[in-house]
Amino acid sequence: MRQGLFITFEGIDGCGKTTQIDILTKRLQKKNLKYTLVREPGGTKIGEKIRKILLDNDNINMEHKTELLLYSASRYQLCKQKLLPELDAGKIVICDRFYDSTTAYQGYGRGLDIDFINSLNKFATDELVPDLTFFLDISLNEREKRIGNNKLDRLESEQNNFHQKVREGFLKINKKNRNRFVKLNGKDGIEIISKKIWNNIERKING
Amino acid sequence: MRQGLFITFEGIDGCGKTTQIDILTKRLQKKNLKYTLVREPGGTKIGEKIRKILLDNDNINMEHKTELLLYSASRYQLCKQKLLPELDAGKIVICDRFYDSTTAYQGYGRGLDIDFINSLNKFATDELVPDLTFFLDISLNEREKRIGNNKLDRLESEQNNFHQKVREGFLKINKKNRNRFVKLNGKDGIEIISKKIWNNIERKING
Repeated sequence: MRQGLFITFEGIDGCGKTTQIDILTKRLQKKNLKYTLVREPGGTKIGEKIRKILLDNDNINMEHKTELLLYSASRYQLCKQKLLPELDAGKIVICDRFYDSTTAYQGYGRGLDIDFINSLNKFATDELVPDLTFFLDISLNEREKRIGNNKLDRLESEQNNFHQKVREGFLKINKKNRNRFVKLNGKDGIEIISKKIWNNIERKING
Repeated sequence: MRQGLFITFEGIDGCGKTTQIDILTKRLQKKNLKYTLVREPGGTKIGEKIRKILLDNDNINMEHKTELLLYSASRYQLCKQKLLPELDAGKIVICDRFYDSTTAYQGYGRGLDIDFINSLNKFATDELVPDLTFFLDISLNEREKRIGNNKLDRLESEQNNFHQKVREGFLKINKKNRNRFVKLNGKDGIEIISKKIWNNIERKING
């Protein structure tokens, strides 16, 4: 039996994941609760090598299916080497993106077959499912305002139309996974959002 | 309609693939027949980067599913960027290993789910199937004799038990794919084998 708590953060770039994860980890530290924070793709030695291929602007002609399979390869390595052992040991694990991002970006965004992606997601995680997924939702306008002229990687620099499809994908995934999804308005104040996040986590820890 | 001819070579290491591919390409050159030769994993810029991760002895703790997904990622890039366009243009394409190696090594060798691998193989090739597959079969004893003390990569240096399972896997795949498989005794003389290979190819070209 798994005793840990598996928390993931999802949403399009600029939605505020990083800020919220930062607040959350500080709170956990303060309460002396042990946690592990990982980012996708990457998080393992092999995964970081895969991450480099995925985000390199030099690899502009990467096929969509290649991209999907590389994300899944990195994810399996992460699950097996880090997430599953930590969860089995009772820890809190926080993941900046997990397979919902694959469904949203490669499935809804790129238009690859959602059924195949669902079965691939199961295979590439040994069927690990998050206990809580915080989905920070922002509009495309808000995204542009926030991302501005930052230096973008290969995926971030895709056209707006792509990110619109990804956002709609997240909204659909949210509807299908109400049991673990918590949808938050990314335009709310940072304090309001972090309070909602903490309330949900506390309920899980205590319940 | 695809007009080219897609030829793959399969078998455990030391089976004589390289020698036979060499003889075949020289014969094609002599006859002024255009061909493309590629190796798996790799064959594209992105694929070669993936190949490096796969064969690096430094990545000894790579999980079996990670390995499978990396091979498939490299393969899709190769299919889309090279194999399918060349075949559509009517060329002869020769592949040193293709998805039968995935079924044999990751499926039968590593013990991963064969049904999932079959569906993954279809996905990661856009359902491209070889016209002819030359399977050079040798025993494990023969393999050891031939490989000797050469410097081995991560996969070649696996235990004998693994390679035995891979060989048995190839024998099973051969039985299931009689329509395209040509099983050859790797202990036969080089000339005998190359003649058989050429006879089969000539029949396809003329037929």
